[in-house]
Amino acid sequence: MAAVFTFGASPAEQMPRSSVKREPMSAFSRRSFLTGPLLAAGCAALPVQGRAAAPTAKAQGPGVYRYKLGDYQLTALYDGIWYVPIDDKFVRNASAAAVNEALAAGFLPPSVLPISFTALLVNTGARLVLIDTGTAGQITDTAGFMNANLAAAGIKPDAIDTILISHFHPDHIDGIKTKDGDKVFANAEILVPEPEWKFWMDDGTMAQSTGAVHRYFLNARRIFKDIAKEVRPFQPGAEVAPGIVSVPAFGHTPGHTAFAIHSGNQSMLAMSDTAREPWLFVRHPEWQPSYDMDGPQAMKTRTDMLDRAAADRMLVEAYHFPFPACGHIVRSGTGYELVPAMWEPF
Amino acid sequence: MAAVFTFGASPAEQMPRSSVKREPMSAFSRRSFLTGPLLAAGCAALPVQGRAAAPTAKAQGPGVYRYKLGDYQLTALYDGIWYVPIDDKFVRNASAAAVNEALAAGFLPPSVLPISFTALLVNTGARLVLIDTGTAGQITDTAGFMNANLAAAGIKPDAIDTILISHFHPDHIDGIKTKDGDKVFANAEILVPEPEWKFWMDDGTMAQSTGAVHRYFLNARRIFKDIAKEVRPFQPGAEVAPGIVSVPAFGHTPGHTAFAIHSGNQSMLAMSDTAREPWLFVRHPEWQPSYDMDGPQAMKTRTDMLDRAAADRMLVEAYHFPFPACGHIVRSGTGYELVPAMWEPF
Repeated sequence: MAAVFTFGASPAEQMPRSSVKREPMSAFSRRSFLTGPLLAAGCAALPVQGRAAAPTAKAQGPGVYRYKLGDYQLTALYDGIWYVPIDDKFVRNASAAAVNEALAAGFLPPSVLPISFTALLVNTGARLVLIDTGTAGQITDTAGFMNANLAAAGIKPDAIDTILISHFHPDHIDGIKTKDGDKVFANAEILVPEPEWKFWMDDGTMAQSTGAVHRYFLNARRIFKDIAKEVRPFQPGAEVAPGIVSVPAFGHTPGHTAFAIHSGNQSMLAMSDTAREPWLFVRHPEWQPSYDMDGPQAMKTRTDMLDRAAADRMLVEAYHFPFPACGHIVRSGTGYELVPAMWEPF
Repeated sequence: MAAVFTFGASPAEQMPRSSVKREPMSAFSRRSFLTGPLLAAGCAALPVQGRAAAPTAKAQGPGVYRYKLGDYQLTALYDGIWYVPIDDKFVRNASAAAVNEALAAGFLPPSVLPISFTALLVNTGARLVLIDTGTAGQITDTAGFMNANLAAAGIKPDAIDTILISHFHPDHIDGIKTKDGDKVFANAEILVPEPEWKFWMDDGTMAQSTGAVHRYFLNARRIFKDIAKEVRPFQPGAEVAPGIVSVPAFGHTPGHTAFAIHSGNQSMLAMSDTAREPWLFVRHPEWQPSYDMDGPQAMKTRTDMLDRAAADRMLVEAYHFPFPACGHIVRSGTGYELVPAMWEPF
């Protein structure tokens, strides 16, 4: 059976990163830069051995990027990437060939979707608000770095005041608890979209679910069941923290929610999973991936939000955009394009 | 007199970052996301005060990004940004209006060029090779972070075996020494393009120079004069370190040089200052900025290199691309486009 995209796949279904075929480098060969009359000049005394004083690195540098929005300080916290094999069922209304062509346009190898995870921390000056929580190493071994990056940012988990959840897919909620079921953010209130809570906590709906969706039901209960009293559902559209307004963005899941953030005279839009991987669903907003539970509704939500972001030249952020996951949207061809924000000093 | 682009401008000519006007955020207002029937639901118990346990941050996160090329480990080291006021003389063959339009397409404010600095460290396994050296805080207070980022990468300056210099503009060589004239990289041999050395060390040429170029002459002597015996000129085209081949890229300066890096079956091209700011000179390679000493020659070098990078789908890197400063080039319209590499785990 061909691999189908799911969260929380069994270990056997996962592809370790080392087995992911990277796009071969170009035909550009050493010889091509070694021709010409200057080659003969060579390098008179090319040393072949250095001090080798620096050991080779084993891990990526910290994924912590800060930016300002009015009086607020925002921090993008990198969690990593899940390299997911995809097949011709991944996008319901596009062929595998078309999807692979779109990946190639982003200089990415075929048949593998790199799902990047970046959580957003908002420091209002009075409160620390974390939007979604990373994977906590419970999905793939190439992700789960968010807490290490939170530490690199100088923040302890118990300093988080509020957790805002966009929706109940595992990669957004798993970070609430460790693998062993312990709470990670000891002092945080947890705010969740009410329609999302209702859907995933409904026993009747769960009883009818199968496959990956059934596993999401089980996972949502694993995360929330014994802390249900600490969870506060909110109405999509409500202000959920000072200057942070939830924005209904249904379709990806029944209660999927984005967040508009306002401080001073500046605003931005945290799109959650409305657009996801830019090479695919920003450029081709009409494509309906299998992970959108209601494909047509998600497509309308996505197109409307991208269109508005482009028209208003909004600063946007999205959980699955490449780190640091912020930028702007422009119209391009029949779709849109992400213009990543330039990395600046803080 | 209108401000003209120069390196090493006097402090009075520099624009402190705090005075740079950022593009105003969009018209997107809080009200626009607060309308609709759900507003009435509000948030039953919106807390107004958090623990405020986390202090506000004062600095950007570390700018250290690692990637692999064959058996080599590469590290992009961020030095910061210089926000330089520009006027209608900045691009010799484009109007200020056209330049500002190009900046706006990159969501950047008008009349200010953000010059980003990122040095590249190559660990061959046996040697540590640093390509260009950052500004060492000698140009603007919003740059000079490279050595802090080198430390964040776990590498001491005296572990560097080889410094490769692309050309003698201050932002590429100032990091060789501190403000007080001390060598920063105690054990490094310094390799420089021979035509660059000849040009900037020629007393007759210096005697005829004026303005910014004259200051570059003086600065090159400040950096190199008392360590001239430790500097080894190389012929552009020569292999200058194991797997690193210099590539003549004249025009920006008389001896300006790029570097092709090869390891295993992978290759990439460190373009140095051939293309510079992507919103301007990748998209509009025909534009001739005043900092290209020979405008037509630099334009031909730039166009040839971008065209080849696009045709061969090369991995490229450039000192002034936004951090982490690596990606690919594609043809687009009448110019090219930078497709930034996705931030990945190492």
